[in-house]
Amino acid sequence: MTADQDFSSLIDFTAYIDQLKSVTRMNGLFDGSRAETTGEHSWHAALSALLLSPYANFPVDVNKVVQMLLIHDLVEIEAGDTFVYDQSKVAQQVQAEEQAADKLFSRLPDAKAKPLRALWEEFEARQSQDAKFAKAIDRFLPLFSNIHNGGFSWGDHGITQGQVRKICQIIQDGSQKLWALADEMITEAVEKGYLLP
Amino acid sequence: MTADQDFSSLIDFTAYIDQLKSVTRMNGLFDGSRAETTGEHSWHAALSALLLSPYANFPVDVNKVVQMLLIHDLVEIEAGDTFVYDQSKVAQQVQAEEQAADKLFSRLPDAKAKPLRALWEEFEARQSQDAKFAKAIDRFLPLFSNIHNGGFSWGDHGITQGQVRKICQIIQDGSQKLWALADEMITEAVEKGYLLP
Repeated sequence: MTADQDFSSLIDFTAYIDQLKSVTRMNGLFDGSRAETTGEHSWHAALSALLLSPYANFPVDVNKVVQMLLIHDLVEIEAGDTFVYDQSKVAQQVQAEEQAADKLFSRLPDAKAKPLRALWEEFEARQSQDAKFAKAIDRFLPLFSNIHNGGFSWGDHGITQGQVRKICQIIQDGSQKLWALADEMITEAVEKGYLLP
Repeated sequence: MTADQDFSSLIDFTAYIDQLKSVTRMNGLFDGSRAETTGEHSWHAALSALLLSPYANFPVDVNKVVQMLLIHDLVEIEAGDTFVYDQSKVAQQVQAEEQAADKLFSRLPDAKAKPLRALWEEFEARQSQDAKFAKAIDRFLPLFSNIHNGGFSWGDHGITQGQVRKICQIIQDGSQKLWALADEMITEAVEKGYLLP
């Protein structure tokens, strides 16, 4: 690509990603007024990581974690959001997101596509410390919102405590501090009837 | 504050900022389907800065710019969004946002409040190179969306080319490259009838 083509494709990509504001998640706003969009969630996750990084299990590169969370759900523009408790769909989603990533990152100049795809792969693999903390934030926020909005994404789907514990336990890989709080929240959610025992 | 109080206030703040998803802007999504929320806009601005930072007029600390854009509109939780073309309200807004910032940052532990408030003040002052580029992105995106959605935030308010040029000219302080594109877009918007001559 020429320099002009690079600029052009970055500008086009800036317009393209606006579509993430039209992907609706199962998860609700904290006030329960509506479901949140993936664009909003990505902002909330990135800023929450910036606020809560001192509580990671290990030192993290907070700027890398923020970048990871800004891009972590871009593949949903092509692949859509999948409810984390729908296990049959989650399995298909992995493949769908890989294909979506091929499409997504091919829209960018190589010099930008390579590092951003590597960052997305790192997040998905959850092997690095930065990815473990980023994923902890990504999993903590939906739980936290459900405590505030009375189980917005749980109630209608008959979700149980066991399902939430299974999905949320990876929070402890990134932050024992957040996991301790999450653990209390799950117990509280059962007591309040937001979650089946 | 004790260490426990610090954690607690950061967790409360993480819930509090969710309200930025309920602040509605005059600006529309690129597809024109609805107005965007300030939460979504903040994500779009932060990620756009990451993509377009090579086109700043000077080397920028892209991570600082990203952080700036993640927090730049948090004051709108208290102060609301103001239409940039409503000059009588814009004047009042400066004071309202300063008061909102006092409230906002007092919710955080000092160790977090001070650097984040300094970052917000830096953005508002537009004196540093990082702030100039962050503001360029913040001003470019609404113009860019209006080109895509046929003047979503202009049409109903009888906005003229002169008004848009006046508001958008500060883009050139951060990026001549983006300003050149913005300049073309404004001309195109008049030709297409999205904007009054």
